[in-house]
Amino acid sequence: MDARTYIAEHRDEFVAALKEWLSIPSVSTSPDHHADVRDSARWLADHLARTGFPTVETWETGGLPAVFAEWPAADPQAPTVLVYGHHDVQPVDPLDAWHTDPFVPVEDGDRLIGRGASDDKGQVLFHTLGVRAGLAASGADAPPVTLKLLVEGEEESGSPHFADLLRKNRARLDCDVVVISDTTMWAADTPSMCVGMRGMTDCDISLYGPEVDLHSGSFGGAVPNPLHAMADLISGLHDADGRVTVPGFYDDVVEIGEEERGLIARLPFDEAEWLRTAASTATAGEAGYSTLERIWVRPTAEVNGMWGGHTGAGRKTIVPRSAHAKVSFRLVPGQEPLRVQDGVRAYVAAHTPPGLRAEVEFSGPGVRACASDLRSDAVRAARSAMSAAFGTEVLYTREGGSGPEADLAEILGAPLVFVAVGLDDDRIHAPNEKVEIPLLLKGAESVAYLWDELGKNTAG
Amino acid sequence: MDARTYIAEHRDEFVAALKEWLSIPSVSTSPDHHADVRDSARWLADHLARTGFPTVETWETGGLPAVFAEWPAADPQAPTVLVYGHHDVQPVDPLDAWHTDPFVPVEDGDRLIGRGASDDKGQVLFHTLGVRAGLAASGADAPPVTLKLLVEGEEESGSPHFADLLRKNRARLDCDVVVISDTTMWAADTPSMCVGMRGMTDCDISLYGPEVDLHSGSFGGAVPNPLHAMADLISGLHDADGRVTVPGFYDDVVEIGEEERGLIARLPFDEAEWLRTAASTATAGEAGYSTLERIWVRPTAEVNGMWGGHTGAGRKTIVPRSAHAKVSFRLVPGQEPLRVQDGVRAYVAAHTPPGLRAEVEFSGPGVRACASDLRSDAVRAARSAMSAAFGTEVLYTREGGSGPEADLAEILGAPLVFVAVGLDDDRIHAPNEKVEIPLLLKGAESVAYLWDELGKNTAG
Ligand SMILES: [Zn+2]
Ligand SMILES: [Zn+2]
Repeated sequence: MDARTYIAEHRDEFVAALKEWLSIPSVSTSPDHHADVRDSARWLADHLARTGFPTVETWETGGLPAVFAEWPAADPQAPTVLVYGHHDVQPVDPLDAWHTDPFVPVEDGDRLIGRGASDDKGQVLFHTLGVRAGLAASGADAPPVTLKLLVEGEEESGSPHFADLLRKNRARLDCDVVVISDTTMWAADTPSMCVGMRGMTDCDISLYGPEVDLHSGSFGGAVPNPLHAMADLISGLHDADGRVTVPGFYDDVVEIGEEERGLIARLPFDEAEWLRTAASTATAGEAGYSTLERIWVRPTAEVNGMWGGHTGAGRKTIVPRSAHAKVSFRLVPGQEPLRVQDGVRAYVAAHTPPGLRAEVEFSGPGVRACASDLRSDAVRAARSAMSAAFGTEVLYTREGGSGPEADLAEILGAPLVFVAVGLDDDRIHAPNEKVEIPLLLKGAESVAYLWDELGKNTAG
Repeated sequence: MDARTYIAEHRDEFVAALKEWLSIPSVSTSPDHHADVRDSARWLADHLARTGFPTVETWETGGLPAVFAEWPAADPQAPTVLVYGHHDVQPVDPLDAWHTDPFVPVEDGDRLIGRGASDDKGQVLFHTLGVRAGLAASGADAPPVTLKLLVEGEEESGSPHFADLLRKNRARLDCDVVVISDTTMWAADTPSMCVGMRGMTDCDISLYGPEVDLHSGSFGGAVPNPLHAMADLISGLHDADGRVTVPGFYDDVVEIGEEERGLIARLPFDEAEWLRTAASTATAGEAGYSTLERIWVRPTAEVNGMWGGHTGAGRKTIVPRSAHAKVSFRLVPGQEPLRVQDGVRAYVAAHTPPGLRAEVEFSGPGVRACASDLRSDAVRAARSAMSAAFGTEVLYTREGGSGPEADLAEILGAPLVFVAVGLDDDRIHAPNEKVEIPLLLKGAESVAYLWDELGKNTAG
């Protein structure tokens, strides 16, 4: 029986299992649901054991548990793959906006509606169907690669204990490639692989002037106003071409290759539709790059918040004592967050006029961007596996933001490959989250082929 | 008996009366004290009647009452002077910071401490001593000018009913000159006259972008960020010379004359001390003008508040939906607030990039600047009267902000002359307000001479 047939025959069983898992409200951000997150980990552990993984463990963290499973290949020379996903889900507010109970999953034709259906339980679960389909097709007792799964329980809470967990279990997690199943494809009829995610570093910038708010009648026009200086500083952060003026900002940027640029250009991008999604009426950004390039492969500086002086109702004619801005920098491969931070500090110092004092505080060390190596065997294998499953060419996409993926790449020292079948309209993080069941089945089929391909490659 | 001798002999009586008045906590901004404001009006009306004013009336407004008094000159051809002051006082918070009860006035040597001592009860009351001193000196039964007093009860509340009161009583308030006694001199040993106050118009500027806050990972760098645009807009509001770039902003500005510029330059201005008062470490502003010129005779644009996006603790990586700024423009003689408003609207329109929508909302029609005509008989007479009282040359100052004075000039159509003896260190609007009793006596002497001078001038 080939993998596709096995998967088709086990569709209902798979959906039934997923519905069971989706019924557990594993909202990691809500202390009221922490017991549910633990239930969710237990459910997954049981399910992985039933699937056939000989090793299944629940790993405690300082917070909520992750589930680890391992199924060694018969051939000890076979490569090791680590699959990453998460079993916690987003909160459901505003509950009123849901048409069904978020934790009573409902099938509507090919769609399965419920919190976590796409992000990320559905995408984790297709791996259990995929590995069984592969075994059915090969007749073997073990997968062609050593398959490890690490499914964390705090991704929607910002993965606060994840890096520690990786470091602590570095040896157990050793692998040749990391497969991430927590992203989206371009569209149901345009399968694609994410091949990179931007990194980030962010800071609060403050400018301090007079020790107290001054009456602008008595002092206005004769002392430096921190809000004017902040406006100058922020205004100067981009040049006329929309490029970031932080010293050295672009020095280490690895420009994308022509191949990827060409594939991005081939995506059926509808700018009008994208603008509707962005609830915006015009695009803007760095000159010389398309909208997709701007959000995927170009670094940015974005002011997320700015404030100072009187911000309430009515009038208060003051020269305010201080001005503040929150600025985040999206980073692309090559950029070192700490080096960018040095540049930002230098920029702020150079833009602080006499009479004002500046403070720059970064929220942390920042996160590097991550990207797949398009020339690697793993990416080629994944692309060809997905092409086989979907029966059509697979394009490349990227994502503008990143989660714990950069930690995986850095701490485990393994290349990342993204195999995922979510869609941008799955309404993850929003009411009425859904997943397309046929795409989950294609995901299962893709990884069945991928393990075969990777097993062949390295054994050969 | 000359005026000075009369005043010296009546010092204690004057101070006793002022202490009585200061004991009434006429805080107009506090509903709890509105009955006290009415008591204060009654006290003043009684005192004016006892002083000899044949007509004394309490004028109701939509809020708290003003007191009007009139004492006709014997000569019907004599000019009419309207004296303006106010009998309400500032709140006393923070009460802890007062060393004495704000409404139990205390003499400390030559100082009288209590809320309202300088602003403005002391300066209103010196007029009653002054007119009696003038009569004692001349032996006449009536002052040499027709003397009208209008003492409002809502100045510290922004004079919300004052313009209406002026319009309604336009005929009764008819006068040849308005004397304002609610400002300060340069210093106790540097008597000066205020000869102008800046006007103002202010607005809220808003820029709207996406209909909702966007995730900066998914959209950052590809849609216009309202905070970036606001920073550009505010940054562009001043050129490299610190001049305001609003179209037409300087077109109607009446530059001050060389005489006034020379007198300002002769004021013993200590920039280090001024910076301490401003709690600032550097001056800034329009190139080519001194600090005093910048705050007194130059128009400005000042951002009083700015906000948008995430302004709380922590990180929220969004492209915010909107950005806001509160901007006030200090105006100088010649500038029409409504014309400045047109310029600001044009400026904002020109600085709103594609994809954003701008709103500009002015808080009202604005207030014109006011200034005395230095070549007028009234200013010359006042300067010479003060010189005679103080025994030294009187210099000119201005004030950076304005209150209801512009209404007086505009509605009554009369020139303004400022005769006042407050000091910048009187701590008006702050704890431990005080007044220098000898300066109040000099104020009384000054107006005794001034009425004489004005009576002579116009009768002659
Ligand atoms: Zn997810
Ligand atoms: Zn006052």
